[in-house]
Amino acid sequence: MNGGGPGPAGRLLGVGVGPGDPEMLTLKAMRALGEADVVAHFAKAGNASHSRTIAARHLRAGVIELPLLYPVTTEQPKCSNGYRDAIRDFYDAAAVKIAAHLETGLVVAIICEGDPLFYGSYMHLHKRLTPRFAAEIVAGVTGMSGCWSAAGLPMAQGDDVFTVLPATLPEGELSRRLADADAAVVMKVGRHLPKLRRALQTSGRLGRAMYIERGTMADAKMIPLAAKPDDDAPYFAMVLVPGWEERP
Amino acid sequence: MNGGGPGPAGRLLGVGVGPGDPEMLTLKAMRALGEADVVAHFAKAGNASHSRTIAARHLRAGVIELPLLYPVTTEQPKCSNGYRDAIRDFYDAAAVKIAAHLETGLVVAIICEGDPLFYGSYMHLHKRLTPRFAAEIVAGVTGMSGCWSAAGLPMAQGDDVFTVLPATLPEGELSRRLADADAAVVMKVGRHLPKLRRALQTSGRLGRAMYIERGTMADAKMIPLAAKPDDDAPYFAMVLVPGWEERP
Repeated sequence: MNGGGPGPAGRLLGVGVGPGDPEMLTLKAMRALGEADVVAHFAKAGNASHSRTIAARHLRAGVIELPLLYPVTTEQPKCSNGYRDAIRDFYDAAAVKIAAHLETGLVVAIICEGDPLFYGSYMHLHKRLTPRFAAEIVAGVTGMSGCWSAAGLPMAQGDDVFTVLPATLPEGELSRRLADADAAVVMKVGRHLPKLRRALQTSGRLGRAMYIERGTMADAKMIPLAAKPDDDAPYFAMVLVPGWEERP
Repeated sequence: MNGGGPGPAGRLLGVGVGPGDPEMLTLKAMRALGEADVVAHFAKAGNASHSRTIAARHLRAGVIELPLLYPVTTEQPKCSNGYRDAIRDFYDAAAVKIAAHLETGLVVAIICEGDPLFYGSYMHLHKRLTPRFAAEIVAGVTGMSGCWSAAGLPMAQGDDVFTVLPATLPEGELSRRLADADAAVVMKVGRHLPKLRRALQTSGRLGRAMYIERGTMADAKMIPLAAKPDDDAPYFAMVLVPGWEERP
């Protein structure tokens, strides 16, 4: 404590823990976890936090854990006011809890799967906290890198144009964007699989599309999309369209 | 040795060592380096290999090192037959040298900056060697993740469309593609900076563009592109256009 003045400023760390395999954590992430007084992690209510499972072996004994439980996930349409309000209130409240720890001078690590600033929930807290607290970001291996590495698929080279698309886009837009890129990753496949398959067919990319679930885990599932039925694709399944084939 | 039969098969490892900071190596990459009998690394003739510098502290004592020196870099136009022939012969010869080690049963790690299957030279050897030898890929943190993390720039979220573009594209195509994506990374900036600046202006993205050199190193240079003169940009400089701004 600094006498009667304000307490020492804490440190905010946004720590990427990689795509799933605990060995795909960086040395820097391991050090950050060793320094953290508080470790915050996102999870669906009722589920274990994936990022916590990945990082478990590196948490300090006696560390303060702060689970951040999403109030809604895919049950409500994202365009609804109810969804937007609930998720905004959730991030606001999480930022308040984290700020309280930072104000007492503690080191708070918010851990996230993949890379913190690439399609991660961490960004919502970063935007809310960085006006008041300095943040240090520890980059992580992304989920998509984990997937194409597990599949051994050279993705992009030289002057290739690479793109990441959400499968939520309308079919015509998916098809146009797939045809316009050399290499593509399509995320959030889930119930959009039949539509995505049609867009890949129309854009001439179906033959090189690879379907992947849990890419870096022991129970990974990888199959050419052309050979996979339109049955049950989880929300976090990915489709990879490598760019290499066209440039031998 | 297996008596009079063929020798035991070696193992080929494609190992990403991350964007530059040696702490951004993964635990899996560290283990792979500890298992490697031979470590191969790319470099410009006359220069130290960046990937070797990053990995240096993890190489085994007595490891066999195999430097792979590019015969040409940016001195010849890429579309010339001379360039294509020289680079193809170089990769062919490198694959032959690595195959010779694999045939004696050794573990060969080819190390590369960033991620092996994402705009990396490793892919050229992967394509040549995997018909005969199994390869294991160790994903790495990409250069672009290292850059946006160092800059603290939230890049893409939710249903954003993200794209990676080479600055070598014609101005009109750069401009069209920048306007068509929520978030973008432009690579290989170098002498294309004035053209890229015009394309960012035309596409309405100049205001959020960040210019970055040596993103994860102690001597990193980060500056809003609007504030940087069109003077000397190195070939490996990057421009980041974060997607978040439009979706507060």
